[in-house]
Amino acid sequence: MARQDEVTAASPPVIALLTDFGHSDPYVGVMKGVILARSPATQIVDLTHQVPPQSVLEGAFLLETAWRYFPNGTVFLVVVDPGVGSARKRLAVRAHGMTFIGPDNGCLSSVLSDDARGQRDAGAPYKPALCSLQANITAVSIADLSLLGSTVSATFEGRDVFAPAAGVLASGGSIDDLGPRVEAMQAYPAFRAPGGRGLVIHVDTYGNLITDIRAVDVEAASRFVIDGQQVPLVRTYADAPAGGLVAIAGSSGFVEIAVANGSAAARLEAGMGATVDVSA
Amino acid sequence: MARQDEVTAASPPVIALLTDFGHSDPYVGVMKGVILARSPATQIVDLTHQVPPQSVLEGAFLLETAWRYFPNGTVFLVVVDPGVGSARKRLAVRAHGMTFIGPDNGCLSSVLSDDARGQRDAGAPYKPALCSLQANITAVSIADLSLLGSTVSATFEGRDVFAPAAGVLASGGSIDDLGPRVEAMQAYPAFRAPGGRGLVIHVDTYGNLITDIRAVDVEAASRFVIDGQQVPLVRTYADAPAGGLVAIAGSSGFVEIAVANGSAAARLEAGMGATVDVSA
Amino acid sequence: MARQDEVTAASPPVIALLTDFGHSDPYVGVMKGVILARSPATQIVDLTHQVPPQSVLEGAFLLETAWRYFPNGTVFLVVVDPGVGSARKRLAVRAHGMTFIGPDNGCLSSVLSDDARGQRDAGAPYKPALCSLQANITAVSIADLSLLGSTVSATFEGRDVFAPAAGVLASGGSIDDLGPRVEAMQAYPAFRAPGGRGLVIHVDTYGNLITDIRAVDVEAASRFVIDGQQVPLVRTYADAPAGGLVAIAGSSGFVEIAVANGSAAARLEAGMGATVDVSA
Repeated sequence: MARQDEVTAASPPVIALLTDFGHSDPYVGVMKGVILARSPATQIVDLTHQVPPQSVLEGAFLLETAWRYFPNGTVFLVVVDPGVGSARKRLAVRAHGMTFIGPDNGCLSSVLSDDARGQRDAGAPYKPALCSLQANITAVSIADLSLLGSTVSATFEGRDVFAPAAGVLASGGSIDDLGPRVEAMQAYPAFRAPGGRGLVIHVDTYGNLITDIRAVDVEAASRFVIDGQQVPLVRTYADAPAGGLVAIAGSSGFVEIAVANGSAAARLEAGMGATVDVSA
Repeated sequence: MARQDEVTAASPPVIALLTDFGHSDPYVGVMKGVILARSPATQIVDLTHQVPPQSVLEGAFLLETAWRYFPNGTVFLVVVDPGVGSARKRLAVRAHGMTFIGPDNGCLSSVLSDDARGQRDAGAPYKPALCSLQANITAVSIADLSLLGSTVSATFEGRDVFAPAAGVLASGGSIDDLGPRVEAMQAYPAFRAPGGRGLVIHVDTYGNLITDIRAVDVEAASRFVIDGQQVPLVRTYADAPAGGLVAIAGSSGFVEIAVANGSAAARLEAGMGATVDVSA
Repeated sequence: MARQDEVTAASPPVIALLTDFGHSDPYVGVMKGVILARSPATQIVDLTHQVPPQSVLEGAFLLETAWRYFPNGTVFLVVVDPGVGSARKRLAVRAHGMTFIGPDNGCLSSVLSDDARGQRDAGAPYKPALCSLQANITAVSIADLSLLGSTVSATFEGRDVFAPAAGVLASGGSIDDLGPRVEAMQAYPAFRAPGGRGLVIHVDTYGNLITDIRAVDVEAASRFVIDGQQVPLVRTYADAPAGGLVAIAGSSGFVEIAVANGSAAARLEAGMGATVDVSA
């Protein structure tokens, strides 16, 4: 018993937040207050709150690049939710030793494997579809709100449903207390360019254009073309010619189009959805 | 005694910060260092640091929408302080099971009831005035700085007075150690539109225009007019016509003028102080 | 033993982060996940993540204004690193009861004394140079990555080297486990204007122009000239004429050019590197 207390003290629960709420309002802070009222010793980490408003796709992609770096047992709370107040489900998912909470709109795609999600058609944009859960993944539709200890507003379920659920689960609750099991969830196709045509799927703070071309799918001799310009592949920013456009296998495992110490987005006036062609 | 230790370990103190310091300087981080040096296990939460510079009114309003969601015992540290270095008092207030710390300029208005604060005149802007404290609220003027363990600069009392006071109080100190009791404080009139004329009192990150019209003062048949345009009342964003202006009872209990998945502020080129007329 | 556990519980380790990673990506959040996986009870504080991209000088200056306010034992993790992937060293430094981690490019300058860093030539900009470590400062080149438990990407050493090192050191590791001792490091000249000519070295969120003129080097009768305009010295913002330019001894010990409740940067269209002349 004493030993268990010590372990609990040494490893507080972790909740990681990913939203489009921005920083100019107390929306995120209020969610943290709600969490701490239910799970006082939680380590709360901000992944980002600057997902472009209502961009579920970018939220899903950023979650995919981040969750593996967190301690086992982390609860990820993802709220990019243009459908708040509509009939879309609210999910709590146990997968890979983690817990994922958010609306059923594709933002939790990265809990599913590439195979379960399938591939987008070459040339088509990303759209979510209903995908069956793999074995070893369990999910519920958060429907029984009685445990959450809050009244539910029509416009801020992040505060009234998702944050309370995260607090309850971080402090040891079972997902089965929150609602019935579901067998499928909305997910985007695998983030992986089909054939030779990739898409810009996120623009980072430096203006790097992050594509859905996997670094593992690229060879040293691969040639990249964006906006009619051929771009050389380099290993590090330090290898890039000063001010020149390069392609680089980014830290998250995806190819980025970058300008060393500059902004590729500004240079090319390009952003989300721009195409990048790859050839051997 | 052992049990008390366990309770303390399970529920670390919470300090919530609300300032106009922004994120581009270490000002907020330094306040946190100062707090942790005095109260090492504190859970520090950012409400927002992007209150428009020196906008005491918005700071006061945002505090009102946030504090009730925090655990009992939370210390709120509010620093929106155009009068730093002047003779305005510095307050520490115990109210509603919470502690509130900040300059005596109206930013702590929400500790007082609507009745104690009175109502603004129809058509008049918000201005703070001296209001008597209600029973069950105790406040001191922070005057004895000897306990705070810092030297006081002329320009950054957030670091040198308010953060140390928060750290001392979060770790169990008494407000009476910080200075003499006061019987009144500066407060804005109640955030509640008089008659049929509301004001925009905050623009949120989505461009929603938050008014001082209370949701409880509105009926299903209420009609809203802003900038000469009549705006329908809907229950959720999902009920809004695509791209159309709507009024909605927001999550904080105030009516918002919004565009579903868009910005009402941009659409109307309207912001703080714009008027919204309501009729039955 | 029991007592030692209690002390540990009462004072969790502190890691303070200073980067140019911004807030729109999960880069900072991922570093926090990496830290918590190695040091679960750590108090992680953001100093700022909005250092202008690749501005090592501003990162170094902001660290200098901040670190003294943190509890003894704090680990400062500074990642402003235009040379990521190049041959520049990675440092872990023990100085002043604190630990400092970052690339060897000048961003950790403030661990060294003014004497060790020397003075910039009057009229010259700041450039880092190799400086010998003073006695009582120990530093290593982080070279043995086996302890860090991560694979190292070419572009994100913040996640793969620096954050793991911070986690290991915060949880009690020795810097000597990370690599061989070094006797010198890159550092900027002392932040102190030579002769009568200062430089703007940071623009804060209010538009205050922070100079490298030390407050202790200024007298009440000092006269300041920027952009051809003479600017009076005042003690607090409350003493400034409404809307007028003033010089003020800022809270960090450096003279700032400011407009009370306004932006000096906007007024003067001035920023980093602008000159400010001082005369007796």
